[in-house]
Amino acid sequence: MIKLSEIATTPPEGYDKKRTREITREMAKEIGELQEKMYAEKKNSLLVVFQGMDSSGKDGVTQNVFSRCSPAGTDYYAFKKPTEEEFAHDFLWRVHKHAPQKGEIMIFNRSHYEDILIQRVHGWIDEERVNKRIESINALEELLQYDNNTTILKFYMHLSYERQGEKLQERIDDPEKNWKHNPGDWEERKLWDKYRFCYEDAINRSRVPWHIVPVDSRSYRDYCVAKIVLETMENMNIQLPVLKKVES
Amino acid sequence: MIKLSEIATTPPEGYDKKRTREITREMAKEIGELQEKMYAEKKNSLLVVFQGMDSSGKDGVTQNVFSRCSPAGTDYYAFKKPTEEEFAHDFLWRVHKHAPQKGEIMIFNRSHYEDILIQRVHGWIDEERVNKRIESINALEELLQYDNNTTILKFYMHLSYERQGEKLQERIDDPEKNWKHNPGDWEERKLWDKYRFCYEDAINRSRVPWHIVPVDSRSYRDYCVAKIVLETMENMNIQLPVLKKVES
Repeated sequence: MIKLSEIATTPPEGYDKKRTREITREMAKEIGELQEKMYAEKKNSLLVVFQGMDSSGKDGVTQNVFSRCSPAGTDYYAFKKPTEEEFAHDFLWRVHKHAPQKGEIMIFNRSHYEDILIQRVHGWIDEERVNKRIESINALEELLQYDNNTTILKFYMHLSYERQGEKLQERIDDPEKNWKHNPGDWEERKLWDKYRFCYEDAINRSRVPWHIVPVDSRSYRDYCVAKIVLETMENMNIQLPVLKKVES
Repeated sequence: MIKLSEIATTPPEGYDKKRTREITREMAKEIGELQEKMYAEKKNSLLVVFQGMDSSGKDGVTQNVFSRCSPAGTDYYAFKKPTEEEFAHDFLWRVHKHAPQKGEIMIFNRSHYEDILIQRVHGWIDEERVNKRIESINALEELLQYDNNTTILKFYMHLSYERQGEKLQERIDDPEKNWKHNPGDWEERKLWDKYRFCYEDAINRSRVPWHIVPVDSRSYRDYCVAKIVLETMENMNIQLPVLKKVES
């Protein structure tokens, strides 16, 4: 059982920011190389899910960990408010549609978990539906694993309440960040405890495990995610296809 | 437990073909009217699945039961050999993509069940994968039901071995049916018993129940399906939306 309140949101003591950034850049390069091989092999696929409170850095980490990957085999999908067509289907319809192909990395900024987070926090769905949806999520994730060689990496971007306040304030104070400002984020912030409860519950009832990433420091956040992604891809034992010799 | 060998493939004795056809036509008209209301209400959806041996009449029954439905709210999808893109995903990916929208009737000619039928009969997948796929199918069908008000009607087109022989032969003898002839169908016919075992197993392990329709007689086949579809739609208690009075 994971208890978020017992997990640090900050890097370990004595951590070297400059060196960490260098290592992350190096890892991002290796991830790009493995992605190219994975694309060539067309056997495995990787689904990366980023979930976290507003301003926890889902876009920043995507940029810093996957920027050396070719868009040819790397895709990104940010889940927003469902469209009319999406609303006319079950909550997993749009998620399944964007599941990665063999050979592909798919990055989800938010995901199917929103449908048991924001909707639950606001009481738009009852607890019976929450339970059913958690079961459906587990079933879909298992299907992707066993039937399409999909490795699923789910990252909970673990941010402190204080740090969120600073980051949201920056969006007001810094002209370059003004475009990110959304008054609704301050409203949702008032529901912090409810969100955290729902996150914790979702994480603990998930059969495919989550990674809890401390994100108060950007450089440490990127480092943690890159390390897990790289190790995961190394373990896939990706083999480049070889030309069959033609008999002469 | 359903045992297909104990269920008749023929109509009951003394059955009146002419009268049956009239009733079916009348029911098809009512189905068309209910479909229009369902489309207007946009609350319920209906997924109709036709599975059965080659030449069991999946297309014929579609024509005779749903021809009074408007294409605006009625869709049809015939599952063929997967495309390259479909092959690069899990077996339910293409199925989920075609799940009906709220207000819509979706008709599947063949379906996700092929992936535990033809693939199992030919030994392309092992029994462990069959078990997992059956569980995934149940999970997807339940998701459609609870999260999108989808009613699922699954029809097993119950044909006798003898009648299949006659129908496949007609495709050779009758110039108007020549276009349906496929030598592969005669090959698959040799695997009749294996197919029937796999069908029976799929039917018995399905949590959303199946309807077994005797299809040796076309007119009786159409009648049985139309009756179940009509009764199902009547039970949806479809309500046309009414204009809200504008205060003057």
